[in-house]
Amino acid sequence: MSNILITGGAGFIGSHLVDRLLSEGHRVVVIDNLSLGLERNIAHNLSNASFEFIKGDVLDKNLMTKIFNDTKFDIVFHLAANSDIARSHADPSVDLNMTFMTTYSVLEQMRTHDVKKLMFASTSAIYGNAYGIEVTETYGPLFPTSHYGACKLASEGIIASYCENYGIQAYITRFPNVCGERTTHGVLHDFVKKLKKHPCELEVLGDGRQAKPYLYVKDLVDAILFVIQHSNNQINYFNLGVEGNTTVTKIAEMVISSMGLSAKIRYTGGDRGWVGDVPLFRYNLDKIHQLGWKASLSSDEAVQKAIDYILKVDLCNL
Amino acid sequence: MSNILITGGAGFIGSHLVDRLLSEGHRVVVIDNLSLGLERNIAHNLSNASFEFIKGDVLDKNLMTKIFNDTKFDIVFHLAANSDIARSHADPSVDLNMTFMTTYSVLEQMRTHDVKKLMFASTSAIYGNAYGIEVTETYGPLFPTSHYGACKLASEGIIASYCENYGIQAYITRFPNVCGERTTHGVLHDFVKKLKKHPCELEVLGDGRQAKPYLYVKDLVDAILFVIQHSNNQINYFNLGVEGNTTVTKIAEMVISSMGLSAKIRYTGGDRGWVGDVPLFRYNLDKIHQLGWKASLSSDEAVQKAIDYILKVDLCNL
Repeated sequence: MSNILITGGAGFIGSHLVDRLLSEGHRVVVIDNLSLGLERNIAHNLSNASFEFIKGDVLDKNLMTKIFNDTKFDIVFHLAANSDIARSHADPSVDLNMTFMTTYSVLEQMRTHDVKKLMFASTSAIYGNAYGIEVTETYGPLFPTSHYGACKLASEGIIASYCENYGIQAYITRFPNVCGERTTHGVLHDFVKKLKKHPCELEVLGDGRQAKPYLYVKDLVDAILFVIQHSNNQINYFNLGVEGNTTVTKIAEMVISSMGLSAKIRYTGGDRGWVGDVPLFRYNLDKIHQLGWKASLSSDEAVQKAIDYILKVDLCNL
Repeated sequence: MSNILITGGAGFIGSHLVDRLLSEGHRVVVIDNLSLGLERNIAHNLSNASFEFIKGDVLDKNLMTKIFNDTKFDIVFHLAANSDIARSHADPSVDLNMTFMTTYSVLEQMRTHDVKKLMFASTSAIYGNAYGIEVTETYGPLFPTSHYGACKLASEGIIASYCENYGIQAYITRFPNVCGERTTHGVLHDFVKKLKKHPCELEVLGDGRQAKPYLYVKDLVDAILFVIQHSNNQINYFNLGVEGNTTVTKIAEMVISSMGLSAKIRYTGGDRGWVGDVPLFRYNLDKIHQLGWKASLSSDEAVQKAIDYILKVDLCNL
C-alpha cells in the first residue's frame, strides 16, 4: 500500500487513475480545483476510507504545504493542467499557470518534503510540427506549436533539473490524444453538439484528413502503471500510444452513424483545424512496446467508447 | 537604423552587444536591474544620444509596458537571466523568475505591442548530460541538469509557441561558456581569488579534466548578428561556439602563469565540480559553420583575454 497524491485527480484521465489505484489497495489523495475536473468523476469514491478529495488549487502554496505535511507521499502523479490546447491562444497565462506553474509548485513541495517519485503527464504536443516524421522519444528540435505543448516541455525541463539536483525519480509519459468515458471536450463533443443543432450537415474544420492516434483512457492508465513498475532509471520517458490513427473524417462518420443520422459532411478546407494544431502526427511506440506493453483497444475503438459515453450522458451536463 | 531593446544589456555579454549595435548606428534601449549587470559596463555609452539605459526589472509589467509604449521596437534581444548556474541549487526560484519568467514577460510585451523579431540567448545547458556525444541542434532528449538549463529550455519552448501563435520570428542562439572582457564570475575568478589568498597551491574541484569550449565574447556578438543577417526562417536556432576546448587544468595553468606564480595544483578528485555541472561537453558547430561563420579566437585565446581583464581590474570591484 502506497500513499499517493494525484493532482488533477477529478479530471478525465486523473479520475480513471484514481479508480485503478484504489482498486489496487492504495491510499489516494486528490487535489483538484474543479476548473476542468468534475466532482461526479470521483463521487463514487468519496465514501471510500482510502480516498480523500481536496477541492483546491495546486498553485495554493499554503494548501499544498498542508497536504504534504499531513501525508508522507510515496509518489505524486501530476496531471493537473489546462487540457484544452486551443483555449490559451487568446490568453497564454492559462497554460503558463495551469500547465507549467502547477508543475513547479508540485516540485517545490516534493523538494521541501523529501518526496522522491514523480509521475508526470506529458504530451505529444512537445514535439511540435514534426511533419511526416515518426517521432521517437529522442526527437529534436522541440519547438511546440501550442502554449500547452510549450508549458509541458517547460515542465519536463524543470522536472529533469529537480531530478539531478535533489535525487528525484521521474516517470515522464507523453500522452497522445486520449478517448473514453468521462471525456469532457474536443472534436467528438463539438461534432455531437453541431449535429444536435444541424442533423443534416456536419461542418468539419480543415480537410478531414488530419489523423491522430486516440488511446483508450483505461489503456493509458494501464501503461502509466506498467512503466512505473518496469522501468527504473532516474528519468524514465516514454511515448504512450496506440498503433494506427483515426482521421477526422472517420470520427465524423462514426459520430453521425452512432447518432443514427445520415448527415452530409462539409469541409472548411485547409490542412489545419486551428492555430497550433498539428495536422499529421506519427508517434513511434517502439520504446514502450519493447518494455512489454501494448494497448488493448485500437484508436477507432477508443473513439467509439468516447462517442458511446457522450451520447449516453446528457450533453448539458458535460 | 533599427530600434532595439536589449534586456540584460548591462551584463557581461549584453554590454558588448550594446557597443556593437551602437557602433553600427542603431538606437539601443537597455533594461537591466543591475542584479548581475554593472553600470560601468555601459557607462561609456550614457552620453550617446542613440542610447538609453533604464534601470529596472523585466518582471515589472508596468515599466515594461511603458518601455514598449514609448518605442516601437524592430527587434528585442533578450539576454536578461540568472547567469550563475550553481547559484539556484539552493533556491530554484532564482532561475524560475530571472531566467524563465523574464522570457514570458518579454513575449507578452511583444505579443501585445506587435513586435515581431526576437533574439534569445539560449545555452548549451539545455542539452543536459550528453556524455561523449557531440550535440547537434536536433539532439534529444532534452533533460537539463541545472535549473538554469531547464529555464532556458522552458524559454525556448514558449518562444516557439509564441512564434506559431502570433507570427513572431525568433533567433535562438545557444551559447557555450563565454570569456572575455567584463566577465563577472566563474572558474577564472575563483582561481584568481584562491591564488591571491594562497599563492603556492591552487585547489581545483574535480580532476581537472572537465573540458569546455570558451567562446570570445566579441566573437559571440558577431555570431549573433551574423545569424540574424543570414538566416530567415520563423525559428532560427544555432549552436554558437568555437572549435576545441579548454580543460580546467589548462585554465589553472594559464591563471597561475599570468599571475607570475608557480603554484602547485591540488585536485579534489571526482569528475564534477558541483551538482548540475556537465563534465565532458562537445558541441557540434556544423550548422553555424555552414551558414558561413567561424570564431576568430580559439578557446584558449578567449580564456587568456578574460584572465588579462580580471588581472587588470581590481578584484574588489568585480
